[in-house]
Amino acid sequence: MEFESELAVHRTDIPGLVVLDLPVHGDNRGWFKENWQRAKMVALGLPDIRPVQNNISYNTSRGVTRGIHAEPWDKYISIAIGEIFGAWVDLRPGATFGRVFTCTLDPSKAIFVPRGVGNAFQTLADGTTYTYLVDAHWSLAQKRTYTFVNLADPDLAIDWPIPLTAAELSDADRAHPPLREVVPMAPKRT
Amino acid sequence: MEFESELAVHRTDIPGLVVLDLPVHGDNRGWFKENWQRAKMVALGLPDIRPVQNNISYNTSRGVTRGIHAEPWDKYISIAIGEIFGAWVDLRPGATFGRVFTCTLDPSKAIFVPRGVGNAFQTLADGTTYTYLVDAHWSLAQKRTYTFVNLADPDLAIDWPIPLTAAELSDADRAHPPLREVVPMAPKRT
Ligand SMILES: Cc1cn([C@H]2C[C@H](O)[C@@H](COP(=O)(O)OP(=O)(O)O[C@H]3O[C@@H](C)[C@H](O)[C@@H](O)[C@H]3O)O2)c(=O)[nH]c1=O
Ligand SMILES: Cc1cn([C@H]2C[C@H](O)[C@@H](COP(=O)(O)OP(=O)(O)O[C@H]3O[C@@H](C)[C@H](O)[C@@H](O)[C@H]3O)O2)c(=O)[nH]c1=O
Repeated sequence: MEFESELAVHRTDIPGLVVLDLPVHGDNRGWFKENWQRAKMVALGLPDIRPVQNNISYNTSRGVTRGIHAEPWDKYISIAIGEIFGAWVDLRPGATFGRVFTCTLDPSKAIFVPRGVGNAFQTLADGTTYTYLVDAHWSLAQKRTYTFVNLADPDLAIDWPIPLTAAELSDADRAHPPLREVVPMAPKRT
Repeated sequence: MEFESELAVHRTDIPGLVVLDLPVHGDNRGWFKENWQRAKMVALGLPDIRPVQNNISYNTSRGVTRGIHAEPWDKYISIAIGEIFGAWVDLRPGATFGRVFTCTLDPSKAIFVPRGVGNAFQTLADGTTYTYLVDAHWSLAQKRTYTFVNLADPDLAIDWPIPLTAAELSDADRAHPPLREVVPMAPKRT
């Protein structure tokens, strides 16, 4: 795997949700990437993230699906190895509430997800390893302040590459409400 | 892969070099870990890292070996997927100059490497993906301030699981000097 794109930041239709191209340097050993580089990325317009936590999820098989979770912190997400189909839903109050953006991410991409935007992904390869930085500490108490929406909601009409009936999900993620029952996420930290 | 150890911080014989046990939560989808969690880890005695960069290196095959590099910043290192044999050499001036620590790391471990301690690893599994946070920005100019020592130096006597003659290295890493020619790394940032 060799990618040699230039570092770049691309806006999407969801305000504040931005996709990044990351340079990946291949050689005889494998590859190396600056997965997140504050100075270069802020210069290109990425918010100045101050991470306090880095999480990694490992997904055994193709088709593992997680989401849709809007959380009370910003997230900078990328792929260590493998590939995902990602789906993001604006759950903030306002004109863009319910707007959906989807794309695939491999190790040469990253995405910045502002608080209040719902985050979900489905792995397209066995062993996909997903890593993200957040600017607040997770806790079970904080989890009660998440806003959730159902992956399968026909109003979102997300075209999952692997049908959700054949996908590996948590029981919690099967039980989230449809968009029409979602209360938009509070715009400020409480 | 399921690990359920408690978060813990362990000192080593090299001052400031600490190994961590990370809780890894397994379920039907794979696993999830807090790879770095500032508040919990500072409470256990880890230095209060303020990362500005996150790097990922992918290593195609078992036996890829990188190092030994002492850099002018602190590093928090862990494994996204796979396993390494790691070797660390104190290259700071003082009584512990030249002291070596080795151990294996898998996704349930991490290590904090203070500036001035040389860092190296050899992958024990194909596709090992290595991730680290640093508290200063890398640049080619900064690279000229690294202190290097040779992986094969008999004075270090590192017992690499895969002989270095059969390992995949960069040309740069084959050319580093032996310990007896190394000037200890300056104790302060310049
Ligand atoms: C999110 C999180 C979970 N955990 C624990 C709780 C559980 O034991 C285990 C798995 O938690 P779950 O909430 O089921 O993980 P999950 O993988 O379903 O949740 C994730 O889904 C992604 C779509 C979001 O972007 C992430 O931000 C996160 O919400 O990990 C932590 O210890 N720290 C954390 O920060
Ligand atoms: C370290 C680094 C490299 N690069 C580029 C330069 C090269 O094109 C490519 C590979 O660089 P190299 O120096 O050969 O990588 P390397 O994998 O040999 O270097 C690494 O070795 C580990 C043992 C150390 O812990 C790391 O801190 C780092 O020094 O990546 C960056 O763009 N940013 C960085 O921060």
